[in-house]
Amino acid sequence: MTLQPTNPVWEKIDAHIEENTDYWIEELARLCAQPSVSAQNFGITECADLVATMLREQGFRAEVMPSDGYPVVYAEAFGEGDGRSDKTLLFYLHYDVQPAEPLELWDSPPFELTEREGKLYARGISDDKGHIICRLAALAAVKDAMGGELPCNVKFIIEGEEEIGSPNMPAFVEKHQEKLAADACIWEFGGVDHDGRPSQALGMRGICYVELSVQTASIDAHSGLGGSIFPNAAWRLVWALSTLKDQNERILIPGFYDNVQPPSQRDLEMLAAMPSEAANLKQMFALDGFLLGTTDDLALKTQAVFQPTCTICGLTSGYQGAGTKTVLPAKASAKVDFRLVPNQSPQEIISKLRAHLDANGFTDVEITFHGGGRPAKVDPDDPFVQLTNETAELVYGKQPNVAPIIGGSGPNYPFIHTLGLPLVAAGVGYPGSQVHAPNENMRLDYFLLGTKHTARIIEQFAKK
Amino acid sequence: MTLQPTNPVWEKIDAHIEENTDYWIEELARLCAQPSVSAQNFGITECADLVATMLREQGFRAEVMPSDGYPVVYAEAFGEGDGRSDKTLLFYLHYDVQPAEPLELWDSPPFELTEREGKLYARGISDDKGHIICRLAALAAVKDAMGGELPCNVKFIIEGEEEIGSPNMPAFVEKHQEKLAADACIWEFGGVDHDGRPSQALGMRGICYVELSVQTASIDAHSGLGGSIFPNAAWRLVWALSTLKDQNERILIPGFYDNVQPPSQRDLEMLAAMPSEAANLKQMFALDGFLLGTTDDLALKTQAVFQPTCTICGLTSGYQGAGTKTVLPAKASAKVDFRLVPNQSPQEIISKLRAHLDANGFTDVEITFHGGGRPAKVDPDDPFVQLTNETAELVYGKQPNVAPIIGGSGPNYPFIHTLGLPLVAAGVGYPGSQVHAPNENMRLDYFLLGTKHTARIIEQFAKK
Repeated sequence: MTLQPTNPVWEKIDAHIEENTDYWIEELARLCAQPSVSAQNFGITECADLVATMLREQGFRAEVMPSDGYPVVYAEAFGEGDGRSDKTLLFYLHYDVQPAEPLELWDSPPFELTEREGKLYARGISDDKGHIICRLAALAAVKDAMGGELPCNVKFIIEGEEEIGSPNMPAFVEKHQEKLAADACIWEFGGVDHDGRPSQALGMRGICYVELSVQTASIDAHSGLGGSIFPNAAWRLVWALSTLKDQNERILIPGFYDNVQPPSQRDLEMLAAMPSEAANLKQMFALDGFLLGTTDDLALKTQAVFQPTCTICGLTSGYQGAGTKTVLPAKASAKVDFRLVPNQSPQEIISKLRAHLDANGFTDVEITFHGGGRPAKVDPDDPFVQLTNETAELVYGKQPNVAPIIGGSGPNYPFIHTLGLPLVAAGVGYPGSQVHAPNENMRLDYFLLGTKHTARIIEQFAKK
Repeated sequence: MTLQPTNPVWEKIDAHIEENTDYWIEELARLCAQPSVSAQNFGITECADLVATMLREQGFRAEVMPSDGYPVVYAEAFGEGDGRSDKTLLFYLHYDVQPAEPLELWDSPPFELTEREGKLYARGISDDKGHIICRLAALAAVKDAMGGELPCNVKFIIEGEEEIGSPNMPAFVEKHQEKLAADACIWEFGGVDHDGRPSQALGMRGICYVELSVQTASIDAHSGLGGSIFPNAAWRLVWALSTLKDQNERILIPGFYDNVQPPSQRDLEMLAAMPSEAANLKQMFALDGFLLGTTDDLALKTQAVFQPTCTICGLTSGYQGAGTKTVLPAKASAKVDFRLVPNQSPQEIISKLRAHLDANGFTDVEITFHGGGRPAKVDPDDPFVQLTNETAELVYGKQPNVAPIIGGSGPNYPFIHTLGLPLVAAGVGYPGSQVHAPNENMRLDYFLLGTKHTARIIEQFAKK
């Protein structure tokens, strides 16, 4: 299929989006005004109710469904009338947001949408409330352009725990497989890179986040008293950690790499076609160089996303203030995140980690599983992926970057593998969005482009 | 020399101490009411001035001398009249105290001396203001019993930085060697053990306290972004630390043990004669057992004080809160204290540590020296040590425990080696003193015994 740059339906869609921008910004302001911080259980149920209300106002049948955690908003609409497609498009989104803290770094109140110089500021405006409104605006425009009918069935699943790792999404999807059945899925994010090129992400690494903790005594001791004769929790932890990975970045847990699928030739071609981020990253983080001294661009891109990791995210033990305290710590702990590549799984890693620690005499090191999810990627040749990329090029005027997999993680596995859906990114994000940070924002021009792109995907999807 | 249990002079001394108890408690209240927290530079110069004033009121020539840190109070008095000895006794003490925090755990205001059930409570009352008053009370009693004359020359050196590691004491003593010249020294602490037996400590381990820190980037990164390609400060630190000591407690820094002097036969005999603390320690800290599985009592005592150590006192990096944050830390640091045995020195350890880190590729690990001091011990057969032990037995009615060296550290090296003095412990402490902790206290009965003991040492010292 080769699409023409435009056609009368798309022109009508675009006009509807542009003419109704003020209305959608008001809807977005309404949504952003409702805090929904999952990490703090702040406004969660109120926001779930508001999202359901807003979906109903747009003509969807919506319900707030219980999960093993925070409620999930489900909504649906079925196309009606002649010529409608019986295909179903599923939108995965989330209504929860990151904490707004530190509040003093915001230039305007985080839960009050504020416009400044073409940007709209609010907590969650890009991640992910702007995407919720983007989907609604696109659907309304398509419906209007097509005589008041949606061209296909539409389902929404909007969760409230994405920012805390979507711990209940796999089980929820498993449980509601029939209800969620669809033919394709548009993911919760998307947008452009530093050069304004649309970005496509076909997969995400999995994650297994654990805390390793040791307690060697009931209370800390004076280091002069215990130094030679008391076990030291900090030392136990350091020794245990040092057995997990060597200085060549090789993870030493037996069997850790057993299920690692190397990148395909096609994956490597996609990586090669992507712009290099090396210089940007070096400058942004003031790095002398990259791990293992990698300098070749393709090798670096491959290492960045096709290697599983073992990252120490945090270390805590004993005295951490200024100067000295001669204390022998009774407790020590480390936060460790493993990023997983296809076909590793968090359950497998936990069990291999436990066996490894035990085999090395670290039965005293406790593992707390803080959550995780499996890696998953989509076939780059799936027609839905092709459609998304082609429409992106027409809307943005630039060929999309297509990443076979990205370094981050999210609950795409149950959508790709349990529901069997092709899954694409499309949306309103850009590198300056400051998601998770103070002054989170969305550029109005990218909101319009992302919405037009989403609308084209919907309109064309129904035809196929 | 075998001393008789008592004599008319001692009886007069004891009577003077008992009759003037109220006066000395008032003096102690006056001293404790003046905060002097060296870690917070809170009331330091005011307290130095007060101590000098109180010494002058007792007839000493006192001056507040500058050091490279907080001022040092120096005072002296020379014996007068017939029969006086020309020998000089030096008292080392300190006027600074630990922070009073956490304030909410005190049952009475920390800078207001309060009596409850035979105990006096205040910050610094045992460590070390009670000892300052104990020395003054003993000297006044001896002077009174000897017709208004001190039987020997007396010097005081009372510093204000003991609680922050006495960083300037070695240089101060070196600089003022002539002024501080003496024949023997009574140290700032002393007292009884759990069984009310007087305790003698003939030496202290040295210390070398460092912070090891690594910075691998200007800011933390998302672990999904950087996990495979960014250096991780926490990993660098863990790897560096793991090269310092193996799981058999062997310190792996080349040359670390070169200057270690093993305990003498005499040292081992003294350790063997000391009561076992193993059961107490196990219970107090809820330990399963001791390092290296040591169970033999003499072996454990020897390990506790004659082994140098490498203790991780603290670890800090990245995220340390509840749950998860997927962060790749740009910075990591560890507080590490080495306890040193004769004849190691902190300077030697720092230089061997730097060479070891460099040789293992850890040039990126920065060492910050937070202070230290050399180990030192006194000849157990020195007549002054013998005198102290014999008078202790007569005062307390129990043979003293004599430790050839203790696990803790203090600035005894310049007094033993620069000034060449025998140095003994004698004083008002007991295991329930709660020094450095809330509700620091001193038992009134132990104040009287410690003061009587100090007075006997002074009186007898002059005769020898």
